Amino acid sequence: MQYVREPMNPYAGDLSISDFEQLLDRKGGPAVVVHGGAGTAVTDDPAPYLAGTRRACEAGLQVLLAGGSALDAAQAAAMLLEDDPTFNAGTGACLTSAGDCELDASCMEGTRLNAGGVAVVKTVKNPIALARRVCDDTPHVLMAGPGADAFARECGIALHDNALLITPRQLARWRELDVIAQREGADKARGRMGTIGAVAVDSRGRLAACTSTGGTPYKRPGRVGDTSIIGAGTYADDSEAGASSTGLGEAILKVTMARAACLRVRDGLSPREAAVAAVALLRDRAQGDGGIIVAGPDGRLGWAHNTPRMARAMIRVGMSTAKAAV
Amino acid sequence: MQYVREPMNPYAGDLSISDFEQLLDRKGGPAVVVHGGAGTAVTDDPAPYLAGTRRACEAGLQVLLAGGSALDAAQAAAMLLEDDPTFNAGTGACLTSAGDCELDASCMEGTRLNAGGVAVVKTVKNPIALARRVCDDTPHVLMAGPGADAFARECGIALHDNALLITPRQLARWRELDVIAQREGADKARGRMGTIGAVAVDSRGRLAACTSTGGTPYKRPGRVGDTSIIGAGTYADDSEAGASSTGLGEAILKVTMARAACLRVRDGLSPREAAVAAVALLRDRAQGDGGIIVAGPDGRLGWAHNTPRMARAMIRVGMSTAKAAV
Repeated sequence: MQYVREPMNPYAGDLSISDFEQLLDRKGGPAVVVHGGAGTAVTDDPAPYLAGTRRACEAGLQVLLAGGSALDAAQAAAMLLEDDPTFNAGTGACLTSAGDCELDASCMEGTRLNAGGVAVVKTVKNPIALARRVCDDTPHVLMAGPGADAFARECGIALHDNALLITPRQLARWRELDVIAQREGADKARGRMGTIGAVAVDSRGRLAACTSTGGTPYKRPGRVGDTSIIGAGTYADDSEAGASSTGLGEAILKVTMARAACLRVRDGLSPREAAVAAVALLRDRAQGDGGIIVAGPDGRLGWAHNTPRMARAMIRVGMSTAKAAV
Repeated sequence: MQYVREPMNPYAGDLSISDFEQLLDRKGGPAVVVHGGAGTAVTDDPAPYLAGTRRACEAGLQVLLAGGSALDAAQAAAMLLEDDPTFNAGTGACLTSAGDCELDASCMEGTRLNAGGVAVVKTVKNPIALARRVCDDTPHVLMAGPGADAFARECGIALHDNALLITPRQLARWRELDVIAQREGADKARGRMGTIGAVAVDSRGRLAACTSTGGTPYKRPGRVGDTSIIGAGTYADDSEAGASSTGLGEAILKVTMARAACLRVRDGLSPREAAVAAVALLRDRAQGDGGIIVAGPDGRLGWAHNTPRMARAMIRVGMSTAKAAV
C-alpha cells in the first residue's frame, strides 16, 4: 500500500521515513503523537508545521511526566495547536460560506470511555477545552450549536469574539472562495481541509485522544464533519488503541475511521499497520482522502495518510525533542 | 446472556419468543424490521406500540414490493413512526429543559455508504426527510442547529411550528420533570428515553437504516445523542449489515453501537446474535441500557435489548401482516 506511505511530493522531516518507522514501532510510554491536518499543500513552507507539531508533542509529554493524565496531555497538545494560527482549528480556523468560524472538537479517554464533543461552536477560543467540560461536567457526550455556546458560558469559559478567531490568511482564502462561489456556485468553492489532533499514552497504557477543527473552507453553516464525533474523528479504548483522524470528514464519518483503526489494533495489528489499514478503508470504501494518528497501550505509535502531506510529530520518554514530518 | 433476551416484565407479542427467533433467522428479502424505542414502560398499554410498529413495517415492505430502494422503504417506515404520537420522534417528541422539541435523525444506505443526519432541528415535521435531503442533495453527512433548519427551508421543506410537535402527553411529562428540576436540580429530572428506527433489506441484499428521536426528556438544549450519528445510531453497509440503535445515547456513542453490530455480522454472527453482542457491549463497556435492530444482506433479521421493553416489529416477503412485540 505504497500510496499511504509517503507522497511523491517533497518530504520534510526530522528523520528518514524508515527511521521514523523504527521509532514508531518501539514500545514503551509515556508517548505523544500529534497531527496538524492532512491538508497541508506541498507549496506551503514546512517550517511552521514542523515547529508547531513538535511543540505540541513536547507540551503533551511534559504533562505526562508531571503526572498528568493521558487526557490532560492530549488536551494540552491540542490546545497549543488550536492557538497556533498555522493550523485549521481554534485561532486560524477556516471560515464558513457566511464568513465566520464554526468550530468542532472532541476528546475521549480509554479507561472508562469518558468522552465529550462540541459542534458548530462560535464563541470559544479553545473548543477542545469546552469538549473536555462536556466530558467531565455533564452526562452528555455531544453538544451542538447555540446550546453548546450557552454551556460554555455556564462553565465560566469566557466569551471569545468570533472575529478574534479569524486570521488574515483565512480571511484572504475566504475572499478567494467567495469570488468563486459568486461566479460558479458555492459547490465549486472548495479549499484545503485541516484538523489538529493529539493522542497520548501514559506509562501504564492509559490512552486518550483529542481532535479539533474549523471544518472545511467555505462550508455551509451548520455542517458537521468527523471531528466532533466519537468513533469518527476521535476514539480511545485502553483495550484497543487511541486515534485521531483528519481529512474529508464526510468520508471519515461513513467508515467510523478512528474506531476502525482502534479495532485493528485489538485484532493484532501494530498502530502503524492499523493506521495504514484505516486509510485504506477510507479510500477504498468511501473514496476519501485523509490521514490518522494512532497510539497503542504498549506505547507503539502509528500514522498514515493518502494526501500529499500530513503534518505530524511524535515523542516518547527518553527523547529530548519531538520529531516531526510533513 | 439471558438479560438481553426477554425481560421479567410482561411480554406482549404476536408470537412467542422462540417463534420470533425462527422467523428472524429465516433468510430471504425483502424484509423490514423497525423499533419504537427501548424506553417503553411496563405500565404502558402495549396496543399502540404494537399497532404503530406493525403499520410502519408494512408500509416499508410495500415500498420495496413496489420497486422502491431499501432507503426509500426504511424512510417510509420511519416517517410513519415519526408521525405517530405514541413514539418519541417527530410529533410526540419529548421536550428539552427549555420546553421545546429538538429533533435528531439520520439515514444511511449500504451500497455506496451514502448517509445523512440532522441534529438539534426545531422547525421540521419529519427530521428523517431532512436527513435524507442532506444525504441526497449535499456533499455533507451531518448538519446541526440553525444551519440545519435553514437548509430545510432551502430544500423547500415547509416551516413546521415547534409547538405542533408537542403532544399533551409529552407536555404533561415535561411539567412533572420541571417540578423535579426546580426542586432537586435539572440532573434529577430524567424520563424514559425513546427513539424510532427502521432497517430494510431488498431482494438483492441492499441495506438501509433510518433512526429518529426527540432525545432524552428534559435534555439540555443542544445535547445530541446517538441518533443523528452515523456509526452510533445508524449504520448500513451491504457487505456487513444495517442497524438502528435505541437507548442511552451517550453510552451508544461511546461504543459506536450500530457499527459494532454490523461488524459482528461481517465476522460471521447472525443478525440476531450480532444484536445480542452489541447490547452486551453497550452494557459491559459503557454501562448503558438500550437495544438495537439489525438486518443482514441475506434477509436475516435480529433484535435485542437489555431494557424491560423494546417496541419492535418485523415483516418479510410472504407474510401478510407484520409481527410485533413490546
